[in-house]
Amino acid sequence: MYKRMFYNSLLIKVFFVALLLPSFSKAGESFGFFEGPNAYTYTRDGLKSHIESATSRVSNEFNPEICSRPEHKELMERLKKYQPSVDRIKQSVVSGSYKNTTYEGLVDFLDTFGPRISGSVALEKSIDYLQDAFESSQGVDIMWTQPVDVPKWERGEESARLVTSSNRSLAMFSLGQSVPTPSNGIIADVVVFNDYKSLAENIANVRDRIVVCNFIGVEGDILDTKNTGYPQVADNGGLAILYKSAATFSLYTPHTRRANLYYNGVSKEIPIAYLTTEDTALLSRIYARGEQITMDLKIFNKYHNDVTESRNLFGDWVGLALPEEHVILSAHTDSWDVGQGAQDDGVGIYLVVQTMNLLSELGLRPRRTIRSALWTAEEYGFNGSATYIKEYYRTAEQMEKVTLAMEADYACLANGGFIFHANYQGNPLRPHNLMTHEELGCIMTSINEMLGSDVTLGLVYESDSYGTDLDRFIDLDIPVVSLLGDDGRYFWYHHTDSDTVSALNPLQLDYCLASWASATYILADFAYSTERSGGSPSLTYNFMTLISISALFINSMILT
Amino acid sequence: MYKRMFYNSLLIKVFFVALLLPSFSKAGESFGFFEGPNAYTYTRDGLKSHIESATSRVSNEFNPEICSRPEHKELMERLKKYQPSVDRIKQSVVSGSYKNTTYEGLVDFLDTFGPRISGSVALEKSIDYLQDAFESSQGVDIMWTQPVDVPKWERGEESARLVTSSNRSLAMFSLGQSVPTPSNGIIADVVVFNDYKSLAENIANVRDRIVVCNFIGVEGDILDTKNTGYPQVADNGGLAILYKSAATFSLYTPHTRRANLYYNGVSKEIPIAYLTTEDTALLSRIYARGEQITMDLKIFNKYHNDVTESRNLFGDWVGLALPEEHVILSAHTDSWDVGQGAQDDGVGIYLVVQTMNLLSELGLRPRRTIRSALWTAEEYGFNGSATYIKEYYRTAEQMEKVTLAMEADYACLANGGFIFHANYQGNPLRPHNLMTHEELGCIMTSINEMLGSDVTLGLVYESDSYGTDLDRFIDLDIPVVSLLGDDGRYFWYHHTDSDTVSALNPLQLDYCLASWASATYILADFAYSTERSGGSPSLTYNFMTLISISALFINSMILT
Repeated sequence: MYKRMFYNSLLIKVFFVALLLPSFSKAGESFGFFEGPNAYTYTRDGLKSHIESATSRVSNEFNPEICSRPEHKELMERLKKYQPSVDRIKQSVVSGSYKNTTYEGLVDFLDTFGPRISGSVALEKSIDYLQDAFESSQGVDIMWTQPVDVPKWERGEESARLVTSSNRSLAMFSLGQSVPTPSNGIIADVVVFNDYKSLAENIANVRDRIVVCNFIGVEGDILDTKNTGYPQVADNGGLAILYKSAATFSLYTPHTRRANLYYNGVSKEIPIAYLTTEDTALLSRIYARGEQITMDLKIFNKYHNDVTESRNLFGDWVGLALPEEHVILSAHTDSWDVGQGAQDDGVGIYLVVQTMNLLSELGLRPRRTIRSALWTAEEYGFNGSATYIKEYYRTAEQMEKVTLAMEADYACLANGGFIFHANYQGNPLRPHNLMTHEELGCIMTSINEMLGSDVTLGLVYESDSYGTDLDRFIDLDIPVVSLLGDDGRYFWYHHTDSDTVSALNPLQLDYCLASWASATYILADFAYSTERSGGSPSLTYNFMTLISISALFINSMILT
Repeated sequence: MYKRMFYNSLLIKVFFVALLLPSFSKAGESFGFFEGPNAYTYTRDGLKSHIESATSRVSNEFNPEICSRPEHKELMERLKKYQPSVDRIKQSVVSGSYKNTTYEGLVDFLDTFGPRISGSVALEKSIDYLQDAFESSQGVDIMWTQPVDVPKWERGEESARLVTSSNRSLAMFSLGQSVPTPSNGIIADVVVFNDYKSLAENIANVRDRIVVCNFIGVEGDILDTKNTGYPQVADNGGLAILYKSAATFSLYTPHTRRANLYYNGVSKEIPIAYLTTEDTALLSRIYARGEQITMDLKIFNKYHNDVTESRNLFGDWVGLALPEEHVILSAHTDSWDVGQGAQDDGVGIYLVVQTMNLLSELGLRPRRTIRSALWTAEEYGFNGSATYIKEYYRTAEQMEKVTLAMEADYACLANGGFIFHANYQGNPLRPHNLMTHEELGCIMTSINEMLGSDVTLGLVYESDSYGTDLDRFIDLDIPVVSLLGDDGRYFWYHHTDSDTVSALNPLQLDYCLASWASATYILADFAYSTERSGGSPSLTYNFMTLISISALFINSMILT
């Protein structure tokens, strides 16, 4: 449905002021602003070592010296013109009317709907609520939804109990869509492996046993689920498999995830769950001492392979000069059925909503369309974004319209900076990108510099694998940008009962919004040197802008 | 029972070498050795701010400049003579045969017995096991146990469930010896208070309600249970009371404690439990929005006021020169019924066992007797140490024999240093102490300096309130020394399911043992300037030592 188009004359003034003002920016090396609830005081280097050791997702830092090379001089010079816009965004968020509002809006949302697992009533109600938020936002001209088939699965009673020596109960979460155990459970001896190699070498020992894996992937990579021995165990008569939680720190905190990370492409499905890191270590020690371990395992999940309908939610804020081109600004609405889905991905949802609201309130309508997108069922394997891509990026003509995809699905524990990727792998549907990988890195570096060391740690990382919806865009050769909000603790909270409002940091949420809104505006507005409209970028830019502004004024007057 | 006395001739050589060698020590200001599992890299100042903000227990740092004053010159000079003994202890623990053995012994103990709540079979079996360890230790000449009446209480099924809007279940631990709910539970509306003042002002609202307190004591002091409003709620018709967990950080980690902190001196007992910090915050937010909250609370504990028998375990290693005088080296055997009681107080137990073994192996038998003591039922209110004191410190004659009491019941997450107290309040049974408060502070400062900045952060704090068995000794005017092993995370693990082997740091355990064994030896050996034997301390010292060594040689030869 169409909403009445809105245009604020403030935009024109500010926009032209932005083009005239000189830039000023300074990258800070250390930080003392991490004083909010649940936060530590970090240095930039301290944060780097924390996040780099936490996951392999963040390992390559973009070298900012590249941006001083002659070939990027003109690009870096033109970016400086956005300094006044960034300053206005920052002022509004850090000390103006938006201060603390991201936290407040998000808390209301999380407390009202709680966890929002795919297939649940809570998820659909939360999408209704967000639809209202899109509807009432001045940053959305066109709003619509897209139906998506999503899994319906429900956690039932589940327990893992040692029935030898002690009658000890172990904390556990079965993985989403795990097959259930028989209705009287599985009582069997346990075999424990400490790495993939020993599992592979002793695979005959798994027959008729419950298999405990006191390891995650290869070499401790918590995101790797390829080399975990699942197919071998399932094919060799293992009755069930219990992995070490993928949490990087635990206070006896069980963790969940999707079973299809393991089931995918394997013929046999056996019950699968995560134990706490404490308990897999305990079982490993007991097993190493030669004690027999017998376990009573019950997983009474429901609706194993059921499918139901959910929705992606979209809101286009039509661009001034290139309305047919869009930048995706996204997050996902669903969460696991534990905690409140606060960092994963309540934070991302509210960064989308607030960015739309803030940019429109400041009159910062960019040249391109901003397409706010809230994907459903990300947690089961990116169902929402995959459905979107299938419909919207089928043809070369469609693919020409998408400039870049942004998603904030990597927490906001600290406002660390950005992760990006823009390599071009030769997708025939996509003739070229508006930017090279290096250019996008320099743009993100420049945005950090304009934001300043008081609101961001200013890091820029490169990654071609996010474990989020962004991976589907990378597959299509579409450039991507992610917020870097992990402070090394994301996998303390991720997919656990502790991912609640208590894990939010109001101050950092403000800083994340300042970064995310600035990035959204600049990435959607910037005159890339390879724009299809051709000619001198700055000339095209101003000319197209004037045309669009005129058109919008007329539009606005007609509709009012 | 008496064990065969043992004497190692190495002692004589080393002892006299120790008297002759000059001291060398250097206090370090920053540390880089926190590289073990689960540990952070701390600076000395970083650790100070962490632990000082964590609890009020550690707030006054002892000023080491006091020790440079003329009146302490002679004491500080004489302490330097212990440097070679400290070096030997350190070498043995950091790079010699004791390296890693504290961790290994403790892991076996914890995995074998698990949690050891007062009144349980596990506790009694673990005391049997430790009795064997005392029996076989060369650092114990005389071993005995003392019967102690202790509470027998058992956690039953328990749950807290919201029955309005969502059917959400809240993680919860009832407190030890909480009265149960009726057998069909309590279903009632909830009232939430965010501080003591609002509770007191709105006490009429508690009638027939379940009361949730989203606060701990006054001004966030997690150890204060005096100003929590329990008596008011119980007296004004509250049906049950659910407090915010006393954890300083939570990953949805419930926490337990003893109910008698609240019941004590109050006529009416109502069911009492701790919720997670996340859930009391959630309930507080929901309540503030004016939503009705109804809860179904079930606490089906057993054996509410039952009493059973347990034991304190003692091992005297008889002193060379002043065998009638003793220094208490202690910890407690019991834990709560959750986790494995690793930091609380498995660490303390193994620091006692290892100190006995290490000092005897190195032949470092001090002038006074070291009385290793493992108290039972500390968690319910210091039953073991109270029973000991009643029997052993009834008269002035008995009280003259105790020099000082040491207990390690404050974790070993990092080897921070010591906490001490030696004020003399005028107990008529205790004519005087062998040391003043200042002198004890200087002794502990000197021990840290001798240990060096590679094994200890070197902090010395003063406190007259420990929340452990040491408080009973302070009440009697007996000087006390505690290990400072908190790195700011102790109340992350304390009394939760996360207090397991996984919370142990093998390297820090070695460092803690180096400090604890050095302190034990020096405090039991030192010639205090006010020793009752009178005369020149150093003369007395050498003369008595020679006498004792001769006596022990004769004894040893007779018994062999």
